[in-house]
Amino acid sequence: MLVKKVDIIPLEVIVRNIAAGSICKRLGIKEGKEFKKSIIEFSYKNDEYKDPLINEDHIIALEIITEDEIQIIKNYAAKINEILKEFFIGLNIVLVDFKLEFGKYGLDIILADEISPDTCRLWDKDSMQKLDKDRFRQDLGQVIQAYKQVLERIEK
Amino acid sequence: MLVKKVDIIPLEVIVRNIAAGSICKRLGIKEGKEFKKSIIEFSYKNDEYKDPLINEDHIIALEIITEDEIQIIKNYAAKINEILKEFFIGLNIVLVDFKLEFGKYGLDIILADEISPDTCRLWDKDSMQKLDKDRFRQDLGQVIQAYKQVLERIEK
Repeated sequence: MLVKKVDIIPLEVIVRNIAAGSICKRLGIKEGKEFKKSIIEFSYKNDEYKDPLINEDHIIALEIITEDEIQIIKNYAAKINEILKEFFIGLNIVLVDFKLEFGKYGLDIILADEISPDTCRLWDKDSMQKLDKDRFRQDLGQVIQAYKQVLERIEK
Repeated sequence: MLVKKVDIIPLEVIVRNIAAGSICKRLGIKEGKEFKKSIIEFSYKNDEYKDPLINEDHIIALEIITEDEIQIIKNYAAKINEILKEFFIGLNIVLVDFKLEFGKYGLDIILADEISPDTCRLWDKDSMQKLDKDRFRQDLGQVIQAYKQVLERIEK
């Protein structure tokens, strides 16, 4: 495995296919609502200001990355979404949303994050049972069993 | 004066040339910082959820307006900004930021809002003295005098 040292871009990139978590609380959207077009959200990684949601103009004003780099990241995020959605649906799992982080490696922008049930929301397609971090966050129990189930379906 | 009855679009459109108000608190930007490129922000007019900041994907997911209509509004907002900036600078006043609301009139999208020191931040260009609602909000006194000064400079 090749490990590259990147300069982390202080953005969380969230891709949402179905409403769950903060977006429901923030905008009053019902959990489980399927978005016709996936939502891409940026939040500014800054503990003091509690990772606030920002838009593309804010990213440019804060001089985090350029307009072109935003577009590169959005294209990556959309492509990763398509690949992961298809991958998980083959395991009878719905990809609800996930978070990505990117870094700069020289002039390139590369994915710099894990993809796991800690950073994705994954629901069983038939039962809509949660197989991700929300089991822990919402105190639903059987965290390990759920993570194991994801792993088992992947290994199969 | 022709009064048209419009269907108000539940968005506040905020245009920012210089940092002031909520953006400073939210993102830790110093008041007075001039943005190289103006910022356009949308907030979802919804009392229950306290007019949350949203991005263009949220607007589409909430089915408030279409992607094309967002672009129309952004173009209007940018054009209005250019006109107002130039108008005010002729009065030795800096246009810091302002808020717009739009409505639908048949198939058209039209401006449906006042433009005043209640909806704009206006600073005297030389002294950077505030001539707008912040005199009231920040308890700076001389609210009426400041509004009158704006009016007098306009009438001159």
